[in-house]
Amino acid sequence: MPPVNHAPQSPFPFELISDHLSVIERDIRAQAELFEPEVRDYFAYVCDTSGKRIRPALAILVANALDNCHHEHHRLGVILELIHLATLIHDDIIDGADTRRDTPTANAKWGNAMSVLLGDCLFAHSMTEATLFDDLVICRKIGKASRDVCTGEIIQTQSRFDLNLTRENYFRIIEMKTGALFAIATELAAVLSGASAETAAAMYDYGMKLGTAYQIYDDCVDLVGKEEAIGKTLGTDLERGKLTLPIINLMESVDEAKRESISAHLLNHGGTNLDALAEIADYKEALNNATQTGHDLLSAARKQLECLPANPSSAALEQITRYLDGLLSDCAG
Amino acid sequence: MPPVNHAPQSPFPFELISDHLSVIERDIRAQAELFEPEVRDYFAYVCDTSGKRIRPALAILVANALDNCHHEHHRLGVILELIHLATLIHDDIIDGADTRRDTPTANAKWGNAMSVLLGDCLFAHSMTEATLFDDLVICRKIGKASRDVCTGEIIQTQSRFDLNLTRENYFRIIEMKTGALFAIATELAAVLSGASAETAAAMYDYGMKLGTAYQIYDDCVDLVGKEEAIGKTLGTDLERGKLTLPIINLMESVDEAKRESISAHLLNHGGTNLDALAEIADYKEALNNATQTGHDLLSAARKQLECLPANPSSAALEQITRYLDGLLSDCAG
Repeated sequence: MPPVNHAPQSPFPFELISDHLSVIERDIRAQAELFEPEVRDYFAYVCDTSGKRIRPALAILVANALDNCHHEHHRLGVILELIHLATLIHDDIIDGADTRRDTPTANAKWGNAMSVLLGDCLFAHSMTEATLFDDLVICRKIGKASRDVCTGEIIQTQSRFDLNLTRENYFRIIEMKTGALFAIATELAAVLSGASAETAAAMYDYGMKLGTAYQIYDDCVDLVGKEEAIGKTLGTDLERGKLTLPIINLMESVDEAKRESISAHLLNHGGTNLDALAEIADYKEALNNATQTGHDLLSAARKQLECLPANPSSAALEQITRYLDGLLSDCAG
Repeated sequence: MPPVNHAPQSPFPFELISDHLSVIERDIRAQAELFEPEVRDYFAYVCDTSGKRIRPALAILVANALDNCHHEHHRLGVILELIHLATLIHDDIIDGADTRRDTPTANAKWGNAMSVLLGDCLFAHSMTEATLFDDLVICRKIGKASRDVCTGEIIQTQSRFDLNLTRENYFRIIEMKTGALFAIATELAAVLSGASAETAAAMYDYGMKLGTAYQIYDDCVDLVGKEEAIGKTLGTDLERGKLTLPIINLMESVDEAKRESISAHLLNHGGTNLDALAEIADYKEALNNATQTGHDLLSAARKQLECLPANPSSAALEQITRYLDGLLSDCAG
């Protein structure tokens, strides 16, 4: 049975870049041949069940906007998606997740040992493929971004049930774990298109801000979203002690006594029960402030697009920010 | 309390290369500064508790033998050791190991989630450091070797309790999981010393054969060695369904009926009881044949050293093979 995708309608103008995305999809599948025969079936499975190819799509849109999209952008898309797949495999081990997008996760199917190794194999393979760029700077940025993703996850894991997690550290975490790969998708696409350093830097900022806003949306929807709408288990962040922006806002907005009550409530693993939380404090404003932070980031991301020529692809990059604005608004109380 | 090292006396002539190894050790510690502050303590702990720096030592000896050892060899040593540390961290998760060299493993100390991420972070960091070589071929070989290590582990995990594991696949597994990193330690050291392609290829073969022989020794000692002699839990391979060369030899040497008995015995998790195994078949010859395979590999490794000039370092590379010959002989029945 093919995986059922319950995700919201994609904001990506697929028609505009469908040829490129088809090539990337074909190239992702073709990577299987580069693994030993024993690894290929595992690889094919995770390719089928995970990943929305957002990072490759962003890279292609930037390259198209700069009117210089070529095969190295396809390679970039493949590598970014493989790194993303590797992190998803390991995330599912860490979260003990049994399903992702309604299909069994790698750890549910083959156990943690195989999933640890499969993620490692994908990581090492991605980095090996990155050396095909013949540009060590690109290779290095991909390595650093991968390290940032892992580091963000480490600090997040370390901060579980740390009710004093600061806003500053929350942003450090999400910039590393989500922003880093978005940022190199758009930055390196510009570099490969021969863009100026200024344009590449603007594209880095666009990707970073978009990725960070996307993570804020993901964190908000985990708190208030409806499970059937997204196809993954929701309300799980608080249960796992992951403090996200709405809760950080809430903790900052209430007095000491309420903060104590909320802390006690969260530590008792009652975090998933929003009704109980609502009895202690009105979380709506905290939630709305979080979605507003997302809107602000998206607005700043749009500013970075000003250096691009006006064309359908640069319009699409703006359209993505508007789409995410809409999703954030849907989360607001 | 510092880790207690029960390992056999090292075969490495440390005096010959102690200055270089000190630099590498200092440089490994200095890597901590390149991680985010939250990661540094974890990193320092795994540096303290794991790794015998065999791969860096081999690289330095090859460079010295070629009379051209410089700071890039130190970088190579650091990178190889970091990759090795990353694989040890993940191996301990997979094996559910609580101690390594008498100190708690990362997973015993911080749990599997943190250990998965810490290994990933070390992997990604190693690959990032590899881009500092300004030579994409070196970078690519390091990536491929890392992928080979993971692939070898995947095939080994997949082959657990596969009583039909072939000799051919056993060698594929150990060449990838252990040989690959040894082989690039010696090959890339030669490349960085400006050696000819022939010498680099000979050094690759030396490292591959030495690493493979080392793994055969490790597998033999797991079967028959004494726990107090090595400082890690022994007799665990069979318990985990890992068929190694002595058992593959044994299965091939007996008739169908005995093969059935041995299989039944192993599948009943009685593998750790050598006495019970001895009642079914005489495993001494199978063990001796395995150690002989190790001796043959070491003899072939020595042949590869003929292209090196005669000097204390090339003598030391030969001495290492003789030392391993001695360890293998100690295992023989």
